[in-house]
Amino acid sequence: MTSRKNALPISRSEDFSAWYQAAITGADLAENSSVRGCMVIKPYGYAIWERMQRILDDRFKELGHQNAYFPLFIPLSLFEKEAEHVEGFAKEMAIVTHHRLEKVDGKLKPAGELETPLAVRPTSELVIGESMARWIKSYRDLPVRINQWCNVVRWEMRTRMFLRSSEFLWQEGHTAHETEEEAKTQAREMHEVYNWFISDVLKLYGIPGLKPNHDKFAGAVETYTVETIMQDGKALQAATSHYLGQNFARAVDIRFQSRSGTQEYANTTSWGITTRMIGALVMSHGDDDGINLPSAIAPYHVVIIPLLRSGNEDKLICYCEKIKESLPKGIRSIVDMKDISPQNKKWDYIRKGVPFILEIGLKECDQENVSIIKRASNLEKETCNISEFAANVERLLEQHDKILKDRINELAKNKINNTIKTIDELKEYFRSDTGFVKVKWSGSTDNLSVLDELSLTIRCIPTSQSETKGKCLLSGVDATTDIILAKSY
Amino acid sequence: MTSRKNALPISRSEDFSAWYQAAITGADLAENSSVRGCMVIKPYGYAIWERMQRILDDRFKELGHQNAYFPLFIPLSLFEKEAEHVEGFAKEMAIVTHHRLEKVDGKLKPAGELETPLAVRPTSELVIGESMARWIKSYRDLPVRINQWCNVVRWEMRTRMFLRSSEFLWQEGHTAHETEEEAKTQAREMHEVYNWFISDVLKLYGIPGLKPNHDKFAGAVETYTVETIMQDGKALQAATSHYLGQNFARAVDIRFQSRSGTQEYANTTSWGITTRMIGALVMSHGDDDGINLPSAIAPYHVVIIPLLRSGNEDKLICYCEKIKESLPKGIRSIVDMKDISPQNKKWDYIRKGVPFILEIGLKECDQENVSIIKRASNLEKETCNISEFAANVERLLEQHDKILKDRINELAKNKINNTIKTIDELKEYFRSDTGFVKVKWSGSTDNLSVLDELSLTIRCIPTSQSETKGKCLLSGVDATTDIILAKSY
Repeated sequence: MTSRKNALPISRSEDFSAWYQAAITGADLAENSSVRGCMVIKPYGYAIWERMQRILDDRFKELGHQNAYFPLFIPLSLFEKEAEHVEGFAKEMAIVTHHRLEKVDGKLKPAGELETPLAVRPTSELVIGESMARWIKSYRDLPVRINQWCNVVRWEMRTRMFLRSSEFLWQEGHTAHETEEEAKTQAREMHEVYNWFISDVLKLYGIPGLKPNHDKFAGAVETYTVETIMQDGKALQAATSHYLGQNFARAVDIRFQSRSGTQEYANTTSWGITTRMIGALVMSHGDDDGINLPSAIAPYHVVIIPLLRSGNEDKLICYCEKIKESLPKGIRSIVDMKDISPQNKKWDYIRKGVPFILEIGLKECDQENVSIIKRASNLEKETCNISEFAANVERLLEQHDKILKDRINELAKNKINNTIKTIDELKEYFRSDTGFVKVKWSGSTDNLSVLDELSLTIRCIPTSQSETKGKCLLSGVDATTDIILAKSY
Repeated sequence: MTSRKNALPISRSEDFSAWYQAAITGADLAENSSVRGCMVIKPYGYAIWERMQRILDDRFKELGHQNAYFPLFIPLSLFEKEAEHVEGFAKEMAIVTHHRLEKVDGKLKPAGELETPLAVRPTSELVIGESMARWIKSYRDLPVRINQWCNVVRWEMRTRMFLRSSEFLWQEGHTAHETEEEAKTQAREMHEVYNWFISDVLKLYGIPGLKPNHDKFAGAVETYTVETIMQDGKALQAATSHYLGQNFARAVDIRFQSRSGTQEYANTTSWGITTRMIGALVMSHGDDDGINLPSAIAPYHVVIIPLLRSGNEDKLICYCEKIKESLPKGIRSIVDMKDISPQNKKWDYIRKGVPFILEIGLKECDQENVSIIKRASNLEKETCNISEFAANVERLLEQHDKILKDRINELAKNKINNTIKTIDELKEYFRSDTGFVKVKWSGSTDNLSVLDELSLTIRCIPTSQSETKGKCLLSGVDATTDIILAKSY
C-alpha cells in the first residue's frame, strides 16, 4: 500500500455513497440534468454502454432474436388488461394528458387534452404483446423472438445516478412460444446469457437464482435474476428474465392454431438489462482512484500521453503515433494531444479506469521504450521496449481482467456469510457488517417483517443449491432451500 | 415489360398513396399500433434502420462526434427560453402532467400532478445546450461535438407510416464552436455528409440547398436541406443541418472565455436524419412488385430458397449451405428453411427487395448451378455456375445499385422542369403533372399565397446555382437566384 494521495476527493471507507458519486463525476460518466430524476449520460459513460450493447446485441442475434421498435406510449385502456402488471407499475408512471402548449397570461400551459391519457412505457409486455397477437396465427409462426433497445420511464421518488433514475436505457426481449416448456427454457437461456455477460464480460460477482414469489416481476410466473455483490456488501439486481406463462397472452389475446387444430394461448417471456450495469461496474471494480473497467467494455485499452515540452514536439508526437500503430488490431488506443498538462491528463485517465496509461517523454522516445501505468495494479509503473509492449499488450489485458475478477471474488468470499442460523445472529451480523447471508427457508412469508426491520430482502433462491438440510431462519421448521438475504440498491 | 401479375395488389399508377402502404405491408417493414400516430417498426424495417445507423454512426465518429444521451423530458420553463423555437413546436407536443395512476370508480386515472409539466422532446437543442453550458468554460473546451440516437415526439394530426408519425427515431447532432465561421463550416460539413449518404449510400436523387428564411428550423439562422424527389414527383425533405448562430447559446447561456480573455457566446449547430428515410427508399426505388434496396442497407443481399420435395432434402440443403459458404465475406445471405412453400417465399423476398433470390432445386444441385432472380432487373432470371456466382456477386451488386441509381436519375430528368417562366405556366404544369420546378426568385415573400393555392412550397435554394439572370416568378423583378418549387411529403 502506498501513502500517496488518491485521485478521488473521498474514499470508499469514508463514505461509500459519496465516493460513488465522486467516482462517476471523476470518470465523467454522467451528470444530473434539470429534469428531476433524469440524468445525462456523458460521452465516456455512453461509450461504455455502446460496448455493452454491441456485445449483448451480437449474442442475442446469434440466438435468433430480432430487433424491432414499438411505441413509447401505452394507452391506459391497454395497460389495464393485466391486473397484477398495472398494480406493479401504477405508482411510478409518467402520464401524457395533453398534446400541445398554449400561452395563457404569457405563460405556457398544456392544452389539447387527450381523450385517453397515455402512459410513457415503463416496460413493453402489453404493447409488444398486442403486435404479437397480430403476427401469430398458427404454431408455424412460433417462436417469435423480439428485442428492443430503448428508453423507459419509471417515476422514482428517490433517484441515484445509473442505479435508479426516472428515465433509463435498456434492452427488453420478448418471446412467444408454443409450449410452456419451450418458454421456460427460453427464460432460463436468457438468464444464462445475462449471467455470462455479468460474470465473464463485466467480471462482476453475480449469484444467479430465482426471485421468491412475493418479489416477482408484476405479472410473471417466474422471475430469474442475477444478484451482484457490491464492495459495500449490498446487492444490486443486475438483470432479470421472466417466464410469463399465459398471463400476458390472455391479456392481449396472443392465440394460435395448435398442431392438433385447437386454439391455444402462447407462452411468453421477457428479459432485460439496463444502464444500471454501469453503476454496478463502478461499485464493484472502483477504488479510491476512480473506476476500473474490464477490457471488453473499456472505451480505451491504452492511452498514450506525450510529455510535450517546446522543442521536442514533432519527434515525440511521431513516436507516440508509432506506439499506437504498433499495437495489435482490437486494442483500442489514442494519443491524447489535448492542450492540457500531461499530469492532469494522467489523473483524468486514472479516474476513467483506462487499463494502461503510457507516459512518453524524450527518454522513452530515445530508448524506444514505453512507461506504463497499470491501472488495476495500484498504478504500478513499468518500463519496457515498444515492441515488447505491442507483443504483450493482449496478455497484459488478460492479467488486468484477472486482477479485477480475483479482487471481486475475494470480496465476495469475505462478504458472503454461510454460518448464520438464527434471527439473533442475523441481527448481530448486520450490526457490524453488510453482506450476503445464505440461510435456509421453508418458503413461508409469515415472518418477513423481521427482514423489513433490518432493511433486508430475499435477493434470490440461488440456482446452485447446497442440497443440505436445516431449519428455516424465519419459521424454524425443517427446510432445504438456500436463499440469499441482503440489503440492496 | 411483362404481362405477368405483379406482387403487390395495387400499382403505383393506380394509386400512389395506396401503393406506398401496400409496399410497406408487403415488405413487412412496419405496422400501425393502437396508439394514434405511433407505428411499430417491424424486424425487417428495423434491420434497414440499423444498417443506416451503423453507416452514419461510423462516419460521425470519424469526424470527431461523440455519442451521448440526454433526458426525454423538457421542463416547460426551459422550453420557453428560445421564443421562436417554442413557437415552432408548441402546437405538436406531448405533455406529461402526472406521475402515477389511481383507480377511481374502477377506472385508472392520472394522479400525482407535476408542479411543472414536462414536454416529451420534439428535439433537444435546449436540453443539450444546458449541458453544454455546464461543460464549456474556455475556448480550450471547444469545439464540443455531440450526437444522440433516440426517439422524439411531434404530435402530428395527419400521420403516415415512416413519413410523419407522432413518435419517430432519429439522430440529432449538436455542436458548439468558438467562431461563427467554424460553426457554419460544421453545419455545411454535416449537410455534405447527409448528401453523400442520401445520394451515394441510399442511391436517392437529392438536391442539396438552403431553406428560404421563412421556412427555417425554429430558432435557426440558416437551415441546409437535401430535398429528394419521389416517383410521384413530390419532394421529401430528407435531412437538415442548422447553423443556429448564438440564438440557443444566449437562451441557455453557453459562454466561454475567449483567447483574448473576454466572455463570448458559443456558436452552435444541430443536424438530424430520421426513420422517414425508409419511406424515401420505398417511394424512390419501389416498383409494382415491392420495394428495392441498395446494397449498403439491404439486410440480405442473397436469399437462397431450397425447392424442397420429400426425398431430396439432405442433398439439397447441403448444396444450399455450400452456396452460402461460397460467397465472399461481406455478402449478407441466408438459406431460408422456413416451413412455407418455396413459391410464397420467393414472392415474399421479391416484395422485400432482396437483390438476388436463388431458387435451388435438384437440377441446380446436380449441375452445380444457381438460378438467380435479379430483383432490380424486373425479376430477370439467370442461371450460372456456383463458383461463377460467388466470383461475380460483388460486381452484380454494383450493377444492382447502378440500376437503382440510373432509374432515379432518369426519373429526376423527367420530373425536374427548368422551362417555366410565369405563374400561368406553373399552374398549367401542375394541372397535368407533379414535379420539381426550378425558377428564379428575388427573395420576396409577397406572392407566396400563389404557391399556397397550388400546395407548393419553396423546397430549397439549391447549392448549385445556374448563375443566369431572369425574372422572379413571384414578383416579376430581375432575379438570379434559382429555387425549387414542389409539392412535398
